[in-house]
Amino acid sequence: MKNNNHNQANHNEKVKIIPLGGLEQIGMNITCFEYDDSIIVVDCGLSFPTEDMLGVDLVIPDVTYLKDNIDKVKGFIITHGHEDHIGALPYVLKEVPVPIYATKLTMGIIEHKLKEHNMMKSVKRKVIKHGQFINLGCFRIEFIKTNHSIADATALAIYTPAGIIIHTGDFKIDYTPVFGERIDLQRFAELGKKGVLALMSDSTNAERPGFTQSERTVGRTFDHIFNEHKNSRIIIATFASNVDRVQQIINTAYRYGRKVIVEGRSMVNIITIAQELGYIQIPENTLIDLESMKNYPPEQLVLITTGSQGETMAALSRMAASIHRKVTINPGDTIIFSSNPIPGNEKAVSNVINELYRKGADVIFQDTHVSGHACQEEIKLIYALTRPKYAIPVHGEYRHLKAHAGLAEAMGIEKDHIIIMKTGDVLELSETKAKVTGHVQSGGIMVDGLGVGDVGNIVLRDRQMLSQNGLIIVVMTLDKYTNELLAGPDIVSRGFVYVRESEDLMDQARHVVSNALDDCLAKHCSEWGKIKNVVRESLGDFIWKQTKRNPMILPIIMEVDA
Amino acid sequence: MKNNNHNQANHNEKVKIIPLGGLEQIGMNITCFEYDDSIIVVDCGLSFPTEDMLGVDLVIPDVTYLKDNIDKVKGFIITHGHEDHIGALPYVLKEVPVPIYATKLTMGIIEHKLKEHNMMKSVKRKVIKHGQFINLGCFRIEFIKTNHSIADATALAIYTPAGIIIHTGDFKIDYTPVFGERIDLQRFAELGKKGVLALMSDSTNAERPGFTQSERTVGRTFDHIFNEHKNSRIIIATFASNVDRVQQIINTAYRYGRKVIVEGRSMVNIITIAQELGYIQIPENTLIDLESMKNYPPEQLVLITTGSQGETMAALSRMAASIHRKVTINPGDTIIFSSNPIPGNEKAVSNVINELYRKGADVIFQDTHVSGHACQEEIKLIYALTRPKYAIPVHGEYRHLKAHAGLAEAMGIEKDHIIIMKTGDVLELSETKAKVTGHVQSGGIMVDGLGVGDVGNIVLRDRQMLSQNGLIIVVMTLDKYTNELLAGPDIVSRGFVYVRESEDLMDQARHVVSNALDDCLAKHCSEWGKIKNVVRESLGDFIWKQTKRNPMILPIIMEVDA
Repeated sequence: MKNNNHNQANHNEKVKIIPLGGLEQIGMNITCFEYDDSIIVVDCGLSFPTEDMLGVDLVIPDVTYLKDNIDKVKGFIITHGHEDHIGALPYVLKEVPVPIYATKLTMGIIEHKLKEHNMMKSVKRKVIKHGQFINLGCFRIEFIKTNHSIADATALAIYTPAGIIIHTGDFKIDYTPVFGERIDLQRFAELGKKGVLALMSDSTNAERPGFTQSERTVGRTFDHIFNEHKNSRIIIATFASNVDRVQQIINTAYRYGRKVIVEGRSMVNIITIAQELGYIQIPENTLIDLESMKNYPPEQLVLITTGSQGETMAALSRMAASIHRKVTINPGDTIIFSSNPIPGNEKAVSNVINELYRKGADVIFQDTHVSGHACQEEIKLIYALTRPKYAIPVHGEYRHLKAHAGLAEAMGIEKDHIIIMKTGDVLELSETKAKVTGHVQSGGIMVDGLGVGDVGNIVLRDRQMLSQNGLIIVVMTLDKYTNELLAGPDIVSRGFVYVRESEDLMDQARHVVSNALDDCLAKHCSEWGKIKNVVRESLGDFIWKQTKRNPMILPIIMEVDA
Repeated sequence: MKNNNHNQANHNEKVKIIPLGGLEQIGMNITCFEYDDSIIVVDCGLSFPTEDMLGVDLVIPDVTYLKDNIDKVKGFIITHGHEDHIGALPYVLKEVPVPIYATKLTMGIIEHKLKEHNMMKSVKRKVIKHGQFINLGCFRIEFIKTNHSIADATALAIYTPAGIIIHTGDFKIDYTPVFGERIDLQRFAELGKKGVLALMSDSTNAERPGFTQSERTVGRTFDHIFNEHKNSRIIIATFASNVDRVQQIINTAYRYGRKVIVEGRSMVNIITIAQELGYIQIPENTLIDLESMKNYPPEQLVLITTGSQGETMAALSRMAASIHRKVTINPGDTIIFSSNPIPGNEKAVSNVINELYRKGADVIFQDTHVSGHACQEEIKLIYALTRPKYAIPVHGEYRHLKAHAGLAEAMGIEKDHIIIMKTGDVLELSETKAKVTGHVQSGGIMVDGLGVGDVGNIVLRDRQMLSQNGLIIVVMTLDKYTNELLAGPDIVSRGFVYVRESEDLMDQARHVVSNALDDCLAKHCSEWGKIKNVVRESLGDFIWKQTKRNPMILPIIMEVDA
């Protein structure tokens, strides 16, 4: 180890920062810090598939760089328990088996995941408290309390031979948090006084002016709503991981003498973990199970449920669609969306709201949510306290990183000290210089069922084509020696037209193929590739002319030794 | 004709209102009014496919009811020229060939459509002015000036033997419109004094408090932006049909001495029509074509373009993706989104914004748009002026109709006089009673390429399955008489796995099928249906166990007389 005096940065020392994900799109946060023989990794998230990734379940980061440097990798440091920060751990740990460091609730959520993947024995884990330091190779890392839409979130001060780098994780500033302390602004200030080399800070809300409201404001809204809807059952959909939100619902329910039911698998999981670890306090005899619901009149019940994003299979969506096994939406029910639609989910959420209204329920979705991310004035405050030499916006789409860069500039950071990185970039950072000096393999790996990485662009292109136009299969059996047509051509289509109503078209299609084949064989063309091309082209032309559609055309030849 | 005295409603007379679309989802507006031997139809729009309508181009209303009552149908009355109000005309007119009545610009846009479909000769058309009345069978219809995000929008006062029904169309209240007059509030008031039976009013913004801002406010924003970006090329994306918006851009461009280029097919079409009909004034030597762009420095140019909704093939999206033939986005370009994303398009728009930022452009999307629909205070104003006996909210998703119903109630309409209709409902309305007395065939018909209605639920279900999991085809040739396997089983997959990397899996799959077939033939099972089922099940089980995926499995049997 060249230099272990973390507080005294040396002008010549350079540290490398390498984001392996999380910058091109929301999610999949994973960032490496490298110095000499040491690499530490902050977060290891997944992202959810974009619209064009048809049939893909989730996307995990390509960690080839970590595998190639496995001897250097000291561990994963996790800032909080959201999927986009922990979700890829079970996959990545199989290839990069190093210890995990996280705060208590975060670790509880990670452990639940590891149990599901049967990995509890193989993974080393260490729970860290806010204010605590850990040493990993050349790095010393301090955990600093922040606020976010999940409890126990942490920022990191990473002491490197080149200077202190602060990584905020996802954060907001909540002066009146529901559970635990407010963000440790004093510590940010203290580090700022010492001298901060770089600030890597959350950009999610960098386009939004002002200050994100305290989580407590939602509690007050719940009080109002409960007071105004004393005679109806209340159903509240929110993010499973927002333990403080659930706590506030439970508090209000208790005050109004209502029993609480928790519904939806992920919601039950997280509440159970939070309860075990002491992150949520549920008064005795408040929580009841779904089966006992029938023993209480509607006005004595509150259901807390998943489905706030309109996810097809989540509990609330199933209730709205009348396919939930146990809960039927009745006229008079009051349903609260304690959430905003995540970009891309607006339509799905709206569809669920429409369905609920159709069933006669009252639906409330205004003032029932606050963001977990810092708005512009909060971001500026962190700059004012830490006064970093370099600003490296993280967490957000490119537009958010750009907006964040604008704020950093407004806060007096020199323009060439504001660095918008790309996934895979290798940034070398020192007191005197910041430069992207290379690029490592990185990007998303698609997971579909048990398959990790076996769905690639060709498969997606085929799925895309099939989804838009369906396909037509042409099968024919040829004599092995004479190439004579022994059977077929038979035509089978799927996702193209409703065949019974289009028999004429299919008959004509068969003729077109037969003629093309006859031509082909008359010319003694016997190469299968050529025959298939002739079939594909003649049928494709015919179908386009008749229908202005482009189904996938798949000729299949079998040969028989007749 | 039983009763032609339109101003003196008879207590016993009933008029029927039958919406054939436009209430379950945004778009596809079409509403019939029926009395005795007369039917008139207000609007004839299309809707764009929802996410689950894979490969579908557009959706048009089922007009079976009109075809079945063709002798009664007197004509289409069109409120304005947006696709969701006129788009289905070329399809529907083929089956319901009756005259069209519309204001000048609306008719200009309809005629452009009819020309494309080669239908100009066969369709009767009549241009109507605001303030003018037409008589159609038992109905008398008055056109009343409104404001909207397209010029020449109209509300309708429909004089029926049962009383006056006001249909607002899509509208807002703009006290300072860019072109033409403000909405004729006096006429609404006058009719209110006479007595209005029912108000059918726009619900799109019924969840939004306050008043929609005047179109002119956007012009002032343009002035600010042009003033602050004197040294860069300006590109503005907006809705092609918002002629007033384009007018304001041209005005500002002219003041700042910039040349204007219009790009994108629909934008060019509408501007051409608007210019021919006098709805837009372009100063001489202001408009230049795309080819001449190279003759001017960037700071003397403004491009007005389509693509404000992130549509993949629209001009701005192609520029952002560097696949536009003529326009390259350069660092320093200023790009303005003069639009809000329509629900469902948020992600696509965001992707384009990210791409533009990546190319070094500055992107502006705040305060650059105002809605074309009335907010809550405007909706209330129309109720205050017209004081209808019945409120029938129209135009909007169910949630918007509900919100509108709440406003109507707040305005003093009795609860049982507020009617939220469903598509196909037959509402019988009289001075004394409103009742849904029946339901007619209605709904959406999907158009895919040239096919109208040949894509149904089975085709969509197949496309959905193919898009998520791909397919595996199993082909085998059997002896016609002995059922002996002569060739195959061969396995071909598409959209399932990248085959070259999964050869093992495919080999095993072939074995599974072979074994299943052997079993089958050993048991002298010769029925094709059974053989196919055995193949489908054994292979499906195997694939699920190996991959946790469910591709479509398609066994195809050919037979040869060997």
